[in-house]
Amino acid sequence: MDDCDVVVVGAGLAGLTAARELSGAGLDVLVLEARDRVGGRTLSQPVGDRAEDVVELGGQWVGPTQHEILSLAQDLGIETYPTHATGKNLFEDGGGKLKRYTGTIPMLAPHVMVDYGQADLRLKRLIKRIDPEAPWDAEHAERLDERSFATWIRRTAKTQTAREALTTAIRAVFSVEPADVSLLHVLFYAAAAGGWDDLLDTEGGAQQDRLAGGTQQLSVRIAEELGDRVELSAPVRSIRSDGDGVVAGEIRARRVIVAVPPALAGRIEYDPPLPGPRDQLTQRMPMGSVIKCMAVYEEPFWREDGLSGQAISLPGPAQVVFDNTPPKGSPGLIAFLEGKDARELAVVPEGERRDAVLRGFQRLFGRRAAHPVHYVEKDWSAEPYSRGCYAGVLGPGAWTGYGRLLREPIGRIHWAGTETATRWMGYMDGAIQSGKRAAAEVLRSEGAAFGDAPGARAAAAARILRR
Amino acid sequence: MDDCDVVVVGAGLAGLTAARELSGAGLDVLVLEARDRVGGRTLSQPVGDRAEDVVELGGQWVGPTQHEILSLAQDLGIETYPTHATGKNLFEDGGGKLKRYTGTIPMLAPHVMVDYGQADLRLKRLIKRIDPEAPWDAEHAERLDERSFATWIRRTAKTQTAREALTTAIRAVFSVEPADVSLLHVLFYAAAAGGWDDLLDTEGGAQQDRLAGGTQQLSVRIAEELGDRVELSAPVRSIRSDGDGVVAGEIRARRVIVAVPPALAGRIEYDPPLPGPRDQLTQRMPMGSVIKCMAVYEEPFWREDGLSGQAISLPGPAQVVFDNTPPKGSPGLIAFLEGKDARELAVVPEGERRDAVLRGFQRLFGRRAAHPVHYVEKDWSAEPYSRGCYAGVLGPGAWTGYGRLLREPIGRIHWAGTETATRWMGYMDGAIQSGKRAAAEVLRSEGAAFGDAPGARAAAAARILRR
Repeated sequence: MDDCDVVVVGAGLAGLTAARELSGAGLDVLVLEARDRVGGRTLSQPVGDRAEDVVELGGQWVGPTQHEILSLAQDLGIETYPTHATGKNLFEDGGGKLKRYTGTIPMLAPHVMVDYGQADLRLKRLIKRIDPEAPWDAEHAERLDERSFATWIRRTAKTQTAREALTTAIRAVFSVEPADVSLLHVLFYAAAAGGWDDLLDTEGGAQQDRLAGGTQQLSVRIAEELGDRVELSAPVRSIRSDGDGVVAGEIRARRVIVAVPPALAGRIEYDPPLPGPRDQLTQRMPMGSVIKCMAVYEEPFWREDGLSGQAISLPGPAQVVFDNTPPKGSPGLIAFLEGKDARELAVVPEGERRDAVLRGFQRLFGRRAAHPVHYVEKDWSAEPYSRGCYAGVLGPGAWTGYGRLLREPIGRIHWAGTETATRWMGYMDGAIQSGKRAAAEVLRSEGAAFGDAPGARAAAAARILRR
Repeated sequence: MDDCDVVVVGAGLAGLTAARELSGAGLDVLVLEARDRVGGRTLSQPVGDRAEDVVELGGQWVGPTQHEILSLAQDLGIETYPTHATGKNLFEDGGGKLKRYTGTIPMLAPHVMVDYGQADLRLKRLIKRIDPEAPWDAEHAERLDERSFATWIRRTAKTQTAREALTTAIRAVFSVEPADVSLLHVLFYAAAAGGWDDLLDTEGGAQQDRLAGGTQQLSVRIAEELGDRVELSAPVRSIRSDGDGVVAGEIRARRVIVAVPPALAGRIEYDPPLPGPRDQLTQRMPMGSVIKCMAVYEEPFWREDGLSGQAISLPGPAQVVFDNTPPKGSPGLIAFLEGKDARELAVVPEGERRDAVLRGFQRLFGRRAAHPVHYVEKDWSAEPYSRGCYAGVLGPGAWTGYGRLLREPIGRIHWAGTETATRWMGYMDGAIQSGKRAAAEVLRSEGAAFGDAPGARAAAAARILRR
């Protein structure tokens, strides 16, 4: 009767991980993917002749405490390599003056450093109060949630430069403006990552390492394992539930895991309709705005100048810049247009955007930066099956008003995707965690129904969660 | 070739008004409505034997400066009658103590009145700075937009009671919590209504009058005029644009007017896909949360006690209560569960919700209130083709980040709906204004294409906008 035991909507890391786990537990799983490729918000595009020589149009970094993705990469035989960070970083201030520095934060005037340091300390104290499993239960949660982070910055930092530094950090981490996220969301996000520095740092933090050959490989390899259990170009526009199971698109199964961002999950038509508050949750997790811009060069000429390729530029629009060269691959720089810059530049002709980015590179790294061999960019807000990156963000009121519903299954419908993670939400690591959690949920709920000896599926679920 | 000149998605007041105007200008229009009824967020349900005896499950009030709806009602021969407001209003404080008062705001302790008065004055000064045509251009717009209204309340009002009064006002007007809206959105909304008091007041304000026989009649009558040009149970799930026109669902036309809330417009599949920022706008206007609860009684017994039936109850959940009796119709009380209360009570069994509301009525109006003849309720967040009421709201960052795109046509796709109004946004009046504006846009764009003498359509457009 059923086409499979469990149908998974979305072949990003969350959906594929869920499918892999369920498949490993002996269930028949089918993954339906809207795009003609797997990998969701990861996309590795070859630039040279060798397979490892890719530019990452999507998620690209892994950090040392991202155990889920590191262990998956190891499992699949994919190696990591450190983000290039040798040499001095650059800071371009509002007036276009360049300063060299090392570490995460440029050396600023002493009174600015004190100001920034105090804000940083306060933030870290607040982060400690948050349990990422239930940010809505934090002490004074409603008060932390009623403020936008912009309000917090204005109240906490006194100097313009410290405020700009905090704003740049928010753009870099969330790809939105500080007004768009609540203080509670920032605290939650940092708590889920293990700390504020874990989000910002290259060495020791979320930007420390990369995957040889690109992050999309993780999904490609899992999809290869799953073989014909992954169907491409198969968008799911409706999910019908009845007493016996679900029908996602045309596929009948006992349960469904929806592994797409909440903003997109809300666009699926459900029958019976989702409860009001669950639907309204999907209206309250808008996606961030980011355009990744990558220039490939003959030579990594900035390294000759003693520069790492990392830069923070307040004038922007390329505010956050990194050396993007894979080992033995084509040298390159990457710029992130984020938040407001991404929204405004999304609608100008591609040539103008390219010129603005390359002018920025030139101010930072000199005239050679103006003439790349290749230039590639990706506006994730234009992708119909992502509609923004890096992740859904929660503005004031959303966590305390709707957060409890984020992972709550609706009958036979389960929710995955990095937005539902409690560790490294918004990251590839969180996507994998969420896929495992959803798979375990399904196993626990359906143990008996799948005809197992009592407890067998629960034990399988426990095994997944321990890994 | 084309099935009609213009297709309109949604037979609420906005869509039907647009269709009526275009039809009046000689175009062939087809309105596609997802529901099996017209009227969108208006819904008048008969309770007695006479057609005029209805309870309003949706929008129900009109104010004296709502010229669009008053003129439409007059056009269609629908009479207005004043909201019942004779007698004393009731205020139930946090401790359950009842106080009688007259006017919009209960008499509070002098220091509270001073505190509230100062906040009220500040708010009104700020409102004057906003041009509702372009709130993003207001002086210090970004600063006004980066703050949630909760932050503003906390900074501005010092007493707990004044804060609660402002919170109740936000719930009553927006059906969300103060954290969920930006200060700029509140200012815009009031500016679009002509002022803050215009939003809150019964006499002289948005709650002054009602329509005999119910507000849904407006839509029903226009639909009757349009005859077979309105198709029910015809949800539009896709809109395809090409060089020649658009195809909405199965219908080919030269242009389309999408007259549904942005949150729902984002769920339609567009080909080519909408530009990123336009799509992201639809992710940033979540609908408010309200459950309307109506009790019908044999007698309007509260009137005998010298009470108007209007009440504000801080303990809630029926925080905002009105006498809902139509002239010569069945006596009734109406309660609005709004914001947090609506979200939390949306998921409890209907009986529990009813009991909670009737307990509230009983505290206010005595034991007879516990035993209505009928009890009817409507949770608008559960309606698949509304997903909340009264309207889409903008949280911090949304107006300045995305507001400019709200009315901007995308090729041959035009946007209507009360969320796009510049006068009385969120109200029926705004819906009508938006329908006229969209109709005029279409006429101006298509004048030549429809084979008119130069200028004829532009003149028709100008006529619509003058009305």
